[in-house]
Amino acid sequence: MATTDKPTDTEYGKEVPPPQQPPTSGGRALLQWRPAVLDLSNIDVVLRSLLFAASVVAIVVIVTSNQTELVPNPFTRRLEYRKAEFNHSPAFIYFVVAFSVAGLYSIITTLASISVILKPNYRLKFTLHFLFWDALILGVVASATGAAGAVAYVGLKGNNHVGWVKVCNRYDKYCRHLAGSLAVALFASIVVVLLIWLSSINLHRRIPK
Amino acid sequence: MATTDKPTDTEYGKEVPPPQQPPTSGGRALLQWRPAVLDLSNIDVVLRSLLFAASVVAIVVIVTSNQTELVPNPFTRRLEYRKAEFNHSPAFIYFVVAFSVAGLYSIITTLASISVILKPNYRLKFTLHFLFWDALILGVVASATGAAGAVAYVGLKGNNHVGWVKVCNRYDKYCRHLAGSLAVALFASIVVVLLIWLSSINLHRRIPK
Repeated sequence: MATTDKPTDTEYGKEVPPPQQPPTSGGRALLQWRPAVLDLSNIDVVLRSLLFAASVVAIVVIVTSNQTELVPNPFTRRLEYRKAEFNHSPAFIYFVVAFSVAGLYSIITTLASISVILKPNYRLKFTLHFLFWDALILGVVASATGAAGAVAYVGLKGNNHVGWVKVCNRYDKYCRHLAGSLAVALFASIVVVLLIWLSSINLHRRIPK
Repeated sequence: MATTDKPTDTEYGKEVPPPQQPPTSGGRALLQWRPAVLDLSNIDVVLRSLLFAASVVAIVVIVTSNQTELVPNPFTRRLEYRKAEFNHSPAFIYFVVAFSVAGLYSIITTLASISVILKPNYRLKFTLHFLFWDALILGVVASATGAAGAVAYVGLKGNNHVGWVKVCNRYDKYCRHLAGSLAVALFASIVVVLLIWLSSINLHRRIPK
């Protein structure tokens, strides 16, 4: 038994690479570098930071949309200086509130996501909580984008059936700000969808096949 | 040895219950009844059916909101019979399209969810796909609800800043239909959030601690 085992052992031995030294701390960090960058947690932090940036930009752009123009009073038809502000429409107020919530939420979850990278033991719990809250925030952000977009569209095109006049032919800067803010808001909604997808993949990857 | 073993055997024998017959198919089904009802897959089917019902109701109620009233023409101010229809506003058209998509999606996923109950091996794959698509549908449904709600709010309250007159004081049935449809749409959005939560829990439960 020992003689038959011996040659087999050495035959396999030829294929075996020379025994490696245990990697040093620096070497291990270098080996783990690529997976760490491609890790889903890092993408999560990046997306949450993007959500924060997009929320801030959307709010700032819509809040700074004030414009004063010489336009006819809608009731008396006399020309007068009238100001267009975002808070003249409840939909835009809801938009600002919703993206304030989303911005605050993104700060908290970016910090939470960074803490998960530092302490990966808590990742499972955090991922489930992220999924729960991301779904709620997606509902809030998407409905706010829809609401502001619908009112902005009425402002752009008017509605002849009920006699709602368009306002964007007079308030050009105001409507440019609205359009910019809505574009960023749409981007933010897509980021939240991506965050939900990422968390789902994160959970799915941890299930043994 | 044989004499010392014999009494011990009979002593233990007293404690042993009489041998049970193998349970029949009906008995086994009865034993498995409670876990099956509490299974998350069944809740998933129920929620997806609810989403289908809510989508159909939301569409039917908004499509049947036609109302003709004797109202002043918004431009000439002369009294005439004017019809209010959902397709006078692009936001309501988007609303109907979005909930048509959600209704169709809910039919497909209800069938898929039932097939998962019949063949549980595919549950993992399906749950991940459900999460992906549910997130998209949530975005569509929530934005449609927001858009229709914002335009309906302008119709209800008007907007004095830009001279958009209210219409709900004249078209009462039209606005009641809109309000009903929006309430059902809000319910549908909540159902989609619950579906995302359910799929997340479903994935999370399958990860070994």
